[in-house]
Amino acid sequence: MLLDDIAIDDLAVGAAFLGGGGGGDPYHAQLVAKAELRKHGPIELIQVDDLDDDALVAPCGWIGAPTVSAEKLPNGNETVLGLRKLEAIMGRSVNAVLPIEIGGANGLAAVIAAAQFGVPVVNADGMGRAFPESQMAIFNIRGLNACPAIVTDASGNVVTIESEDNLAHERLARAISVAMGGIAHMVEYPLTGAQAKSHAVHGSITAAISIGVAIREARAEGRDLFQAVFRALRHSKVYSSAGILFDGKIVDLECETTQGFSIGRVLMKSFDGVDEMEVVFQNENLSARRNGVLVACTPDIISIMDRETASIITTERLKYGQRVKVVAAAAPSILRDPKALSIVGPVAFGMKDRYRPVEDLNDWECENV
Amino acid sequence: MLLDDIAIDDLAVGAAFLGGGGGGDPYHAQLVAKAELRKHGPIELIQVDDLDDDALVAPCGWIGAPTVSAEKLPNGNETVLGLRKLEAIMGRSVNAVLPIEIGGANGLAAVIAAAQFGVPVVNADGMGRAFPESQMAIFNIRGLNACPAIVTDASGNVVTIESEDNLAHERLARAISVAMGGIAHMVEYPLTGAQAKSHAVHGSITAAISIGVAIREARAEGRDLFQAVFRALRHSKVYSSAGILFDGKIVDLECETTQGFSIGRVLMKSFDGVDEMEVVFQNENLSARRNGVLVACTPDIISIMDRETASIITTERLKYGQRVKVVAAAAPSILRDPKALSIVGPVAFGMKDRYRPVEDLNDWECENV
Repeated sequence: MLLDDIAIDDLAVGAAFLGGGGGGDPYHAQLVAKAELRKHGPIELIQVDDLDDDALVAPCGWIGAPTVSAEKLPNGNETVLGLRKLEAIMGRSVNAVLPIEIGGANGLAAVIAAAQFGVPVVNADGMGRAFPESQMAIFNIRGLNACPAIVTDASGNVVTIESEDNLAHERLARAISVAMGGIAHMVEYPLTGAQAKSHAVHGSITAAISIGVAIREARAEGRDLFQAVFRALRHSKVYSSAGILFDGKIVDLECETTQGFSIGRVLMKSFDGVDEMEVVFQNENLSARRNGVLVACTPDIISIMDRETASIITTERLKYGQRVKVVAAAAPSILRDPKALSIVGPVAFGMKDRYRPVEDLNDWECENV
Repeated sequence: MLLDDIAIDDLAVGAAFLGGGGGGDPYHAQLVAKAELRKHGPIELIQVDDLDDDALVAPCGWIGAPTVSAEKLPNGNETVLGLRKLEAIMGRSVNAVLPIEIGGANGLAAVIAAAQFGVPVVNADGMGRAFPESQMAIFNIRGLNACPAIVTDASGNVVTIESEDNLAHERLARAISVAMGGIAHMVEYPLTGAQAKSHAVHGSITAAISIGVAIREARAEGRDLFQAVFRALRHSKVYSSAGILFDGKIVDLECETTQGFSIGRVLMKSFDGVDEMEVVFQNENLSARRNGVLVACTPDIISIMDRETASIITTERLKYGQRVKVVAAAAPSILRDPKALSIVGPVAFGMKDRYRPVEDLNDWECENV
């Protein structure tokens, strides 16, 4: 399958949704990806099962605070610099790239990498959404090593991390990204084709594209945009239940760019002033409480969308007064087992809540799905 | 020349003096160096001019806050891990090591490295004293590149920095050392033998040893300890003038471990309560003011010593009530030219003072020297 301009636009929309507020607003990446298309022609998207077992697959993405990424743009060489360094370390060619996380701008980063580096991008990712920390990748949950990992920046600095400990790797990479100005490119968790087959979240790029297609077509046909998204998710085979958690406007917002993250909370009120909803985020939205009661939490995906246009509002784009719907989608099932939950569930973020699936918390039946 | 137990003890004393409060208290390094001697036999000290021009010389030392180094001890493998990585990157053997700074524990770090790695240590260093930041090495002043540089820690993490910009290198290395717990080993400014000959501060290890010898002998013979130090400095050919700036006790102390440094100030009063002295430090002592008037500043060396025993009191060992003499020594002349002063002089530390040599500020003549 070849990715063209329209696929890039659809992917940007779907990746923003799956980012759950994080991964960075894909707008700039979308422009860059289309510019790369004009230079290099359509980008080849391959299935995970097309990979040779001994292929070298490089997960790519940006590490840092989305609030910074909105202002500090890449120079465009960071990715190639990192991939070349990986090749030098491994003494062989990179055969394909994949997004370390499908969510937000990072859902497009690997597509840009594929165009720039002249390799295919694999229809898969390492998180099935976006998460703020490196060790939250499925590859860590499954026991793979993040290193060698290469962090690069717009000034041409290249830092290589070698660590047996994926938590130490995250701590180091985070500190490096902060020293690089708050955002940096990272190649990490280098995979064999066999490892990608066993552990990556399959089909997440096409799932993201299908969300974009659904919104675009529903918009053209005047259909309900949100129901179109839910239908696309159900058909994706990656995400199952989805629904609306809240409808209202933003009445309060706290956001701090600190320790390499965008951390804060957003408060919404219903239009009749009766109900309120609080969403807490660390780059990504972590929990949603309606009138103080938990109605969704990580790893389930919580996205805040413009209530009229269904545009996704990423963390750094939240503003007082925005009229929004808060939407949630069930996380891919591989993120819901006990091992995964210990790394990406509420406890991993210091929350006291026990994880409960979003569909159980909301008694969702087929009407929402 | 071979370094034995006595040379290690003398070196520890002299390195502490030349550290100007920084480089870390050498006590633990002294114990480690002597343990290595028992394992490997005496350590070979060679002169810079003994190096082949195309030799690979690795400057070694620790980066971080001395306050941390006093509590977080090394595991002993950090140096070898870093040197091995440098060999892998350069595709050749390291022929010799040298201290990136002669001051404090870092004056002994390269001696330990030499024993562990089975190479000679060069009688030279990269600062002629100690400085808090990597770009303050003479090698940066002379335009050499700090990279590839390798930062390692007690958990076996290895981070390689490749940067054309020595200020970016310092910023990255500092952030990495903080993420590693506040102290880390670094191999940086890999040199050819020819570069070491042209740029290193020659003779600094034997100069440091001579300070230790002077204090040890004067102590045994009941002579004035401070005058013995000044005489040794004058004979070293590296340091010229030296003298006492103040005699009193510590009446106030502020010290914060922040941004990877130990930063603060210490206030002393004379015993008659009339005069006071303030010394400001960032790892190393940066300035000394007597009754508000500058009497010494970086790059000249300011050391605080026990007024009875002449023991050097490093930054992290300063305490309220200590009875001390504040001593200064002229920096090596290569640190006093305009280019060097722009990088290691008072302005580089954000001070408003213009640099004036300590001997001019104090009208020192031969009586002190």
